[in-house]
Amino acid sequence: MPVTIKDVARMSGVSISTVSRVINDSKPVSSNIRDRVFKVIEETGYVPNPVARSLVMKKSQLIGVITPGSSQYTMSEFLNGVEEIARMYEYDTILCNTYCESSKEIAYVDLLKSKQVAGIIFITQNINEELDKKLKKSSIPTVYYTLGTPMIPGIDYVDVDRVEAFVKLIEKVTDKDDRDIIYLRPEKKEDDYKESSKEEILKKALKKKNIKLSKCKIIYGADTVEKTYKLVESAMKKNKNIKSIISSIDEATLGSLYYLQDNGKVVPDDVKVAQVYETQITKIIRPGITSISLPLYDMGAVCARMIVKDIENREKSKEKKINEMILPYTLVERKSTLNN
Amino acid sequence: MPVTIKDVARMSGVSISTVSRVINDSKPVSSNIRDRVFKVIEETGYVPNPVARSLVMKKSQLIGVITPGSSQYTMSEFLNGVEEIARMYEYDTILCNTYCESSKEIAYVDLLKSKQVAGIIFITQNINEELDKKLKKSSIPTVYYTLGTPMIPGIDYVDVDRVEAFVKLIEKVTDKDDRDIIYLRPEKKEDDYKESSKEEILKKALKKKNIKLSKCKIIYGADTVEKTYKLVESAMKKNKNIKSIISSIDEATLGSLYYLQDNGKVVPDDVKVAQVYETQITKIIRPGITSISLPLYDMGAVCARMIVKDIENREKSKEKKINEMILPYTLVERKSTLNN
Repeated sequence: MPVTIKDVARMSGVSISTVSRVINDSKPVSSNIRDRVFKVIEETGYVPNPVARSLVMKKSQLIGVITPGSSQYTMSEFLNGVEEIARMYEYDTILCNTYCESSKEIAYVDLLKSKQVAGIIFITQNINEELDKKLKKSSIPTVYYTLGTPMIPGIDYVDVDRVEAFVKLIEKVTDKDDRDIIYLRPEKKEDDYKESSKEEILKKALKKKNIKLSKCKIIYGADTVEKTYKLVESAMKKNKNIKSIISSIDEATLGSLYYLQDNGKVVPDDVKVAQVYETQITKIIRPGITSISLPLYDMGAVCARMIVKDIENREKSKEKKINEMILPYTLVERKSTLNN
Repeated sequence: MPVTIKDVARMSGVSISTVSRVINDSKPVSSNIRDRVFKVIEETGYVPNPVARSLVMKKSQLIGVITPGSSQYTMSEFLNGVEEIARMYEYDTILCNTYCESSKEIAYVDLLKSKQVAGIIFITQNINEELDKKLKKSSIPTVYYTLGTPMIPGIDYVDVDRVEAFVKLIEKVTDKDDRDIIYLRPEKKEDDYKESSKEEILKKALKKKNIKLSKCKIIYGADTVEKTYKLVESAMKKNKNIKSIISSIDEATLGSLYYLQDNGKVVPDDVKVAQVYETQITKIIRPGITSISLPLYDMGAVCARMIVKDIENREKSKEKKINEMILPYTLVERKSTLNN
């Protein structure tokens, strides 16, 4: 079995992204790590595929990436991983923004088919089973990334163990004492699969921790800083035992912090605050906000690796195997929950 | 001359984006405005082109968008404008992320040519004259958007009057008194055309306002919140007359605010703070930060309109005219500079 970039990463004790950076010389890596990675590459005889490929293949190799849009920090890191690894294997990538509209997903699948892409990385909050059947029929290799929303059976995907990550996040804001939690999220919308999926995962995590829903109130409508401010005010006036806040978006975090600040509550001494997923804001505001850091670059990189493998297997008429990969995440504890 | 979406926007007194939203029914628009727009459409007999097009054309119509990446708020709004208007004219769009690397720009131009796109929207911080010559030779219609960095002659482009916008921003932080200003920006890097362009525009604006460079010190190295904090500390200890801060990125703004907060300085009473361009953060933090709001959606929309016009003219073998369009911006004053 040929050595893959994943093997090199594991054996060097670094992430896939670091190996890619060393190979492509694309971003600064410490000389210590660089040496270690090169040593493993030498020992294993790992060859980044393009060298071998380019000798035998002439066909245009293009991977289409269907994405809800890349405005968020989370998507751009993911796409960075896709693009760097795809390039390493000499594939170009083009992006198609769907803004989560299913009519656009269908149109772009047709477009990518007409442009004869070698494979599709499909990022969606809601897998369209009809469309998936169509893709399987057309035999274009497809890998999904669903941003944590439910999967359907029989597809290739990459994710982290989100329930476990939420359990750890809950532990950071609650300790072992009897404090009440509020979970702040935007208003419910039928097509907002991402927010409803976060809520589902939260509920599973609470169950795992044996925390009753009466101890963790889910509050809707935290769409803006101002709305959150009022929601937190009203919740905390009703229940003096609320000492933990988990927010699902930046606006909800800031709204909470400002309310607490204005009312003489110290974070984390009086109230602990966490945000589900790390963003630019959770990292740079004061206090820093404890959150789950997803291995976004690596998830993108693995998707690219999967699709390349799939394309190659199909070229060799090998049987299709389902690829599922669960990657490790990091729970980053910052001042918003740290006991002194 | 046929009526364009721009005419409809002007005559209804709304932006291009609003007209597009009314036509596509893509986002909520007040019924008042909706009625006004429809009235103008009726009066002028404006027909969104696709209806006419689809009757006569069968060719695949695809616009390639070469972009440095769409992670920033600024790029995603711009792309939204490109995509909505392109779709209105029945063009699909695909994105190619270059991360500002010129080797990727070249590769993607080749790729888009091989995929026979009808036109290219080229977003770059640094126009490659060689590549532009190649594009002109290949006769693929191309429109540039340069994020404020210098243009070369003879190309189509869209922008705002950035020097004028900076002049107004400076006025917001200085009033008419004799306060000193600091301008905080990341460390100088040779290939960071965006930051050096901001600095150039600032210098032109200062000259226009007759402010000597000794009254507005440019400080490098404000790459992170922590670094900025120390830079502001050292600058303000040396010069007690610094009462205005202009920052070029979010991190520099937050670092300044935190230093001022920790040292009992009230914004804006003691020190006024502005950030060059509006971001998510300038809008949602406390105090809100005065900044220049670019008409990002409209700039993207105009680029799309220009390229469609260009493609059509070329199909009819009409002579190429250079399109330059300067759109209006908004100076958004928020609490960080507002006198009580």
